[in-house]
Amino acid sequence: MRIAVLGTGIAGRTLAGKLVEVGHSVTMGSRSATNEAATKWASGAGPRAKAGTFHDAAEDGELVINATPGTVSLDVLAAASTRNLGGKVLIDVANPLDHSAGFPPSLSISNTDSLAETIQRAFPTAKVVKALNTMRADVMVNPERLAGGDHDAFMAGDDPEAKELVAGLLAEFGWRPEHIRDLGPLDAARGMEMWLPLWLRIFMTQGNSPFNIKVVSG
Amino acid sequence: MRIAVLGTGIAGRTLAGKLVEVGHSVTMGSRSATNEAATKWASGAGPRAKAGTFHDAAEDGELVINATPGTVSLDVLAAASTRNLGGKVLIDVANPLDHSAGFPPSLSISNTDSLAETIQRAFPTAKVVKALNTMRADVMVNPERLAGGDHDAFMAGDDPEAKELVAGLLAEFGWRPEHIRDLGPLDAARGMEMWLPLWLRIFMTQGNSPFNIKVVSG
Repeated sequence: MRIAVLGTGIAGRTLAGKLVEVGHSVTMGSRSATNEAATKWASGAGPRAKAGTFHDAAEDGELVINATPGTVSLDVLAAASTRNLGGKVLIDVANPLDHSAGFPPSLSISNTDSLAETIQRAFPTAKVVKALNTMRADVMVNPERLAGGDHDAFMAGDDPEAKELVAGLLAEFGWRPEHIRDLGPLDAARGMEMWLPLWLRIFMTQGNSPFNIKVVSG
Repeated sequence: MRIAVLGTGIAGRTLAGKLVEVGHSVTMGSRSATNEAATKWASGAGPRAKAGTFHDAAEDGELVINATPGTVSLDVLAAASTRNLGGKVLIDVANPLDHSAGFPPSLSISNTDSLAETIQRAFPTAKVVKALNTMRADVMVNPERLAGGDHDAFMAGDDPEAKELVAGLLAEFGWRPEHIRDLGPLDAARGMEMWLPLWLRIFMTQGNSPFNIKVVSG
C-alpha cells in the first residue's frame, strides 16, 4: 500500500520505518519538501521511502497517518487538503497534549470531545480511525518487545471497513487479533486520549522503560 | 481501626463489608441515621458494623472513605464536617461522573483539576489519598478474582504516611505490594479519574464481567 505519514517526530519516523520494513511505500510529509528529518529518514530507509510536503504525501498515499502533535494536527491536515484526504482511511495516532503550562501537559481537547472527532468533523469525507496513541512509538510497531505481545491496542472509528484495514496494519506490526480491542464509534477516542494523563504519571514514576497496559478480565 | 465509609452504594457497601471482614469496625454514613441501605447493611454485617449520619460516621472513624458519587462528594464531606476530617486519612474512591447528558457519562471535573484535589482544597487538614477509583467494587476488595491478582491498583496523595496506611489496607484486601503503584502527589489523581472514560468504553464493549488493567513493562 502507498501510505502517507504526516509528521517527522519519533512517532512518525518509527511508524514510517516499520511500514517500509513490512513492505509498504511511504511518503513522509512535513511543512517543507526539504525538511531535514524527513529527507534524512527517506534517504536511509530504502527505495520505498520518500519525503515531501504534507500535500505531496497525502496526495500520494492511499492511507494517511496523522503523527503530528495534536495541537497542530488540524493545520497539518488542512495543508494536506480535504481533497487528498477524501474517501481515505486516516489513522490518528496523535494526542492533544497542551505543554503551555509545563510538564506534565494537560489536554487541549477532552471530556466531551476529542482530537479524533475534531478531525473527523473538519474532514467529513475521511475515514478517521483512532489507534496507537496510547503507547510509545517503539511499542506501537513492536508489541512483542513487551511481555511477548501480551498487552492491548485500542481502536475507535465510525467506519467498520476502515477499522478492518487498520487492524490488518496492526497485525503486520505484530499485534495479535485478541489484543486489538475495537472500542466502537469514534467518540470512544475521548477515553483513548484521556488515558494520557495516567500514562504520563506511570511514565514519571517508573522511568524511561517502555510500557503498555493489558486489560485483565474475570 | 475504626473506619467511616461515607456512601451506601455498591462501592460503599462492598468496601464496608470487606473492612469488617478483615477485622475493622465500620460506621456506614448516609444522609439520615435511618437510611435503609445503611441500616440493612449494618444489621447483617455483625457487631463491628454500625450505621449513622455522615457526621456520626466521620466522628467515629479514625480513617474516612469517600464512596459517594463524585458530584455530591463535597456536600457529603461538608456534612461530615471539617472538624471530623481534620488530621485524618481520607481515602477518595469516588469518580466525578456527570450523567446529565446520558450514558456514557463525562467528567464534571478533569484535565487541570480533579475531584481529589477539590476535596483536598476544601478540607486542607485532611490527608486525602486517591485510590481504588479505577475499578469495580468487587475487584477493589478481591483482586485475586482476576488473574490471581496480577493487575494494578494506583494511589496518589501528598502525605507519604497516609499513603503507607492506605497501602496497608490494600494489602489486607489482597493487593500484593508490587501491584500497588504510588503515582506520586495528589495531582496524579487527574490521570486516575480521567481513566474512567476509557474504562467505560472497555466496559461497554466487553460486557458485564469484572476487569482491571495491568501495566506491562519492558
